[in-house]
Amino acid sequence: MAATRLYLDWNATAPLHPAARDAMLRAMDIHGNPNSVHGEGRAARAAVEAARRQIASLTGAEPAHVVFTSGATEAANMVLTPEFRMGRTPLTVSHLYISAVEHPAVREGGRFAKDRISEIPVTSDGVVDLATLEAMLSAHDKAAGLPMVAIMLANNETGILQPVAEAAQIVHAVGGLFVVDAVQAAGRVPLDINAIGADFLIASSHKLGGPKGAGALMSRGEVLMPKPLIHGGGQEKGHRSGTENTLAIVGFGAAAEAALADLDDLNAGIAELRDRLEDGMRLAAPDVIIHGKGGARVPNTSFFTLPGLKSETGQIAFDLEGVAISAGSACSSGKVGESHVLAAMGCDPKLGALRISLGPTTSEADIDRAIAAFARIAGRRKLAGAAA
Amino acid sequence: MAATRLYLDWNATAPLHPAARDAMLRAMDIHGNPNSVHGEGRAARAAVEAARRQIASLTGAEPAHVVFTSGATEAANMVLTPEFRMGRTPLTVSHLYISAVEHPAVREGGRFAKDRISEIPVTSDGVVDLATLEAMLSAHDKAAGLPMVAIMLANNETGILQPVAEAAQIVHAVGGLFVVDAVQAAGRVPLDINAIGADFLIASSHKLGGPKGAGALMSRGEVLMPKPLIHGGGQEKGHRSGTENTLAIVGFGAAAEAALADLDDLNAGIAELRDRLEDGMRLAAPDVIIHGKGGARVPNTSFFTLPGLKSETGQIAFDLEGVAISAGSACSSGKVGESHVLAAMGCDPKLGALRISLGPTTSEADIDRAIAAFARIAGRRKLAGAAA
Repeated sequence: MAATRLYLDWNATAPLHPAARDAMLRAMDIHGNPNSVHGEGRAARAAVEAARRQIASLTGAEPAHVVFTSGATEAANMVLTPEFRMGRTPLTVSHLYISAVEHPAVREGGRFAKDRISEIPVTSDGVVDLATLEAMLSAHDKAAGLPMVAIMLANNETGILQPVAEAAQIVHAVGGLFVVDAVQAAGRVPLDINAIGADFLIASSHKLGGPKGAGALMSRGEVLMPKPLIHGGGQEKGHRSGTENTLAIVGFGAAAEAALADLDDLNAGIAELRDRLEDGMRLAAPDVIIHGKGGARVPNTSFFTLPGLKSETGQIAFDLEGVAISAGSACSSGKVGESHVLAAMGCDPKLGALRISLGPTTSEADIDRAIAAFARIAGRRKLAGAAA
Repeated sequence: MAATRLYLDWNATAPLHPAARDAMLRAMDIHGNPNSVHGEGRAARAAVEAARRQIASLTGAEPAHVVFTSGATEAANMVLTPEFRMGRTPLTVSHLYISAVEHPAVREGGRFAKDRISEIPVTSDGVVDLATLEAMLSAHDKAAGLPMVAIMLANNETGILQPVAEAAQIVHAVGGLFVVDAVQAAGRVPLDINAIGADFLIASSHKLGGPKGAGALMSRGEVLMPKPLIHGGGQEKGHRSGTENTLAIVGFGAAAEAALADLDDLNAGIAELRDRLEDGMRLAAPDVIIHGKGGARVPNTSFFTLPGLKSETGQIAFDLEGVAISAGSACSSGKVGESHVLAAMGCDPKLGALRISLGPTTSEADIDRAIAAFARIAGRRKLAGAAA
């Protein structure tokens, strides 16, 4: 089929933003290692530090509190650890509490033993149950160590926004540490580590238009930091060793700056397109279930179940229509498993669900094409249902 | 100064190889996440797997035994761990033995406690002392667990090649695991994981002409693997989670292929240039000490001490001459410490030393310019010495 492809899987990875591409092309001519003291090294260092300021601007963090990692998964593994330091004083975190809808990068619990991880349930709306969190934390044994709570800002499958600022107050009331995975929110909704009250914030380059291979762990303060995950030459003030991924960091910074500049306009425009999509889908198949529609979501994500259509089948059908969408998350190689997010919301995960996620370049015509594809797929499903 | 800069610090990081740049420019148009099943995802997956085959060709490993990481430092932290699995069976490594001249990425010992790490001395030639290694391993308490030995193939400061194949036999005679950091050797000398007999081999993209931000851990077999360092979505067959750094991996693969194609010719040509450099330096300053000159070295590296010249001062003087070289390794931000490599060789590390490292584009004219700069700097040093 010669028709142009339509990419509507921006939550899996965003196409490279032109600003990121341009910045990376320029950075390809920087020869140095940012840790070298000669001119070439200083040029590389300047590029890395400029990107650090760009990331800080997007998230409200101090540039000095941004630690670059190879991505959000590494950042999660870095911060989710029982071993912290407050300056030079060791500090023990004895238990990790995570919402039931976290991304696998957080869900795996980093360096915590499995029996030190508990799940905070979500309501049927997909929103974390703060009353239960409060109850869980009041039962936490402080003698063993501090509690750590990790709640994502926006869910990768549903796009549902979590009440992280309220959660922060609950966590801090008991002296706990609060980690927010902002991977799917950064660049899509306003974001401020201080306004949220997160002790640590995780962001990823390739979800907001930068290249894959860069992410960041941001801290609200400078003194309290996790034991490094990757030891070696002492880069990133000793928090993360290994030569900085200069090119990807530069792209990450440029993408963050572009996302911040466009945030308000895009927000409104993308939300309109997402609503147009959902209205169109409902018109074509009134029985479509749109998960989290009632609540607060990032503007670009629609997660839906079409009764009688298996999500794998649906995804392939869209692919054959030239439209790239996702069945749940694209987190591990070729695996299309049941959604723990749906299960946590009390839906039968066997239903399966499809995710359409938009980006800054998505147009009305794209949405109408997606609706038409959806209508054809939904129509065939009915025929198949009748024949069965 | 308007003169062109001369970059002779390829061991710190190599300028991006044109083949890597071209491959990356093409890969910038691949929109997908390699873990997505749609067309865009499959295109990204194909690019990653092609690069995996290119890396495997360079190192003699099976493509299936190449695990991509964010760099060599991460790969070292991944493999240097007491916790292994042989298939599903846990296996304990109780002690890590490293040569006294390892790069900090290995020297820090990854996930081993500091009291579980011992140093194998090197001779005054900078070569690991195999008799002592043998003695250390025969004293190893096997009841506690297996021994692991890590020896680099080529030293990052001196370029000295280590007798890794002989070491492998010693390690395997006692049933130990053998890890070879091939970062500075890959693409510069012929490399075969099976010929060496290494259980694990570490390589880095940006030392051989690829971009920063990619590395690999290669294993000789498929069954024995370390406990993952980074957990999450289960990418890289569960050995290393996190979305693959597609662009950097593609650049790494292309650079590896280019390095392999040029290996024999470049080897000879670069060794000639390095000898021309060292002859020229000796002529200009007969008291220059060239470390490791008598032994086997990678062809591109010269590590020398100019009595009376502090290495920091020397590096800055070269930088002002427009020539980028290094004082020791460029491993941590702005830090110019004493060389543990010099100390291990029995030299006074206070002497300091400078490293000039060449690459495939280094020309005879470049070498002559470096010699002229060296002569001027050496001349000023004499004057300074007389005045003091």
